[in-house]
Amino acid sequence: MKKQLTASILIIGNEILSGRIQDKNVQFIAKRLADLGISLKEVRVIPDIEKDIIEAVNLLRQKYTYLFTTGGIGPTHDDITVESVAKAFGVDVKIHEETLKKIEEFYKNRGQELNKAREKMAYFPVGAEFINNDLTKAPGFKMENVFVMAGIPEIMNNMFSYVEGFLERSNKIESLSLKVFQGESMIAEDLSNLQNKYPEIDIGSYPFTVSLDTNLREFRINENTKHATDVVFKGSNKINLDKAYNELKNIILSKKYECE
Amino acid sequence: MKKQLTASILIIGNEILSGRIQDKNVQFIAKRLADLGISLKEVRVIPDIEKDIIEAVNLLRQKYTYLFTTGGIGPTHDDITVESVAKAFGVDVKIHEETLKKIEEFYKNRGQELNKAREKMAYFPVGAEFINNDLTKAPGFKMENVFVMAGIPEIMNNMFSYVEGFLERSNKIESLSLKVFQGESMIAEDLSNLQNKYPEIDIGSYPFTVSLDTNLREFRINENTKHATDVVFKGSNKINLDKAYNELKNIILSKKYECE
Repeated sequence: MKKQLTASILIIGNEILSGRIQDKNVQFIAKRLADLGISLKEVRVIPDIEKDIIEAVNLLRQKYTYLFTTGGIGPTHDDITVESVAKAFGVDVKIHEETLKKIEEFYKNRGQELNKAREKMAYFPVGAEFINNDLTKAPGFKMENVFVMAGIPEIMNNMFSYVEGFLERSNKIESLSLKVFQGESMIAEDLSNLQNKYPEIDIGSYPFTVSLDTNLREFRINENTKHATDVVFKGSNKINLDKAYNELKNIILSKKYECE
Repeated sequence: MKKQLTASILIIGNEILSGRIQDKNVQFIAKRLADLGISLKEVRVIPDIEKDIIEAVNLLRQKYTYLFTTGGIGPTHDDITVESVAKAFGVDVKIHEETLKKIEEFYKNRGQELNKAREKMAYFPVGAEFINNDLTKAPGFKMENVFVMAGIPEIMNNMFSYVEGFLERSNKIESLSLKVFQGESMIAEDLSNLQNKYPEIDIGSYPFTVSLDTNLREFRINENTKHATDVVFKGSNKINLDKAYNELKNIILSKKYECE
């Protein structure tokens, strides 16, 4: 078995903390990491404050195999991620002439000129490798195990395809889900016994409700909904995963509960 | 001026880290806190692991005025928040007879009996105050400045109305937004100057694009979209907020850019 690869995400963005924007980057990255067999262990959302960024970057890059950051790499005064990550690594930022030329050309084609703000996007920490994207001329970058990406989901998603080229793969974490049409408390003891029997399988229990009218499956509690439980089994040992899943299924059927 | 009230959110949930679920709790709490004049400074998402919960709770409750946690207070084996928060405070958990009676009655009305899993939801750290909700019989709780709520958005949202009764209010953070129909780099220098002139106002710059066909306003880059910038001014000094906003508006108009 290969070593476990771990990761964390650092969302740098006042707009998430103020509630102005609904974050979409965490779920996107989380799903892609799961496919690569990389276990996401922690997410932090912090403001655009240099000290906070430096502290979080230095802690998370040492704690996990990979750190992914999003946000703060644009042209305006509140975009301070590049400078801050450079400081976290104790290096200077330097202009990258090739990127500068690309940016200059990009604006030239639109009849516009280079200015200070646009120039800013050609600065990177010394030693950075680039993370391109197909949408803009301004790349993200990689410093050791830290991947610095844009905050705008469309650009970040595009950058992540380039990021994947840098990442190690591990045994994929397989997952199975059994929907049991009973409330959690009706099967809690069985789940607990099963978890003790299969300690290497991660058994999660997630309540939802089924509307008796429409069969709508989300969580709404009223006289017209019935409690149900989504039991999710996760692990890289497929044999034990199937075993645990089938054991629960047999228990459920022997109790004459419905499941699928 | 009153002291600044600060807050952090701790999302306890493997289902967010695995990408299975899109978090909706952060934005909900963030918006409500903004209305109360409480500044959300940090969000963390961590797995259902006792050591991690204890560590994060003890750090965040000391660092900020308030800590709000969501997730892990249900009846199953993977719900370990109550025990973990008790340990963070160095107290035991104890059954709360009144809650137990309510839970018993709730199930009795449905022709069901109390079991171990259901009993579990009547345990709380010694010294806890209850956070009720109108949807289930299982309350969240408050320990000093820590508010422990359910992870399911519908229940959490309901609990938060009770939580608000415990919170101090501060000067509301006012906010103004000016949409400028030019890319960020066309106004970056002006924004930077303005930020230097009004250091107590938080000026954020958020790019978006406008489709030339449909006037659709989100971020899509193609030959058919035009870059634009949402400039957001935040602060509790309304006079300076208006000043900064109007200065930018005058600059934009003098450059003959469109804005609204």
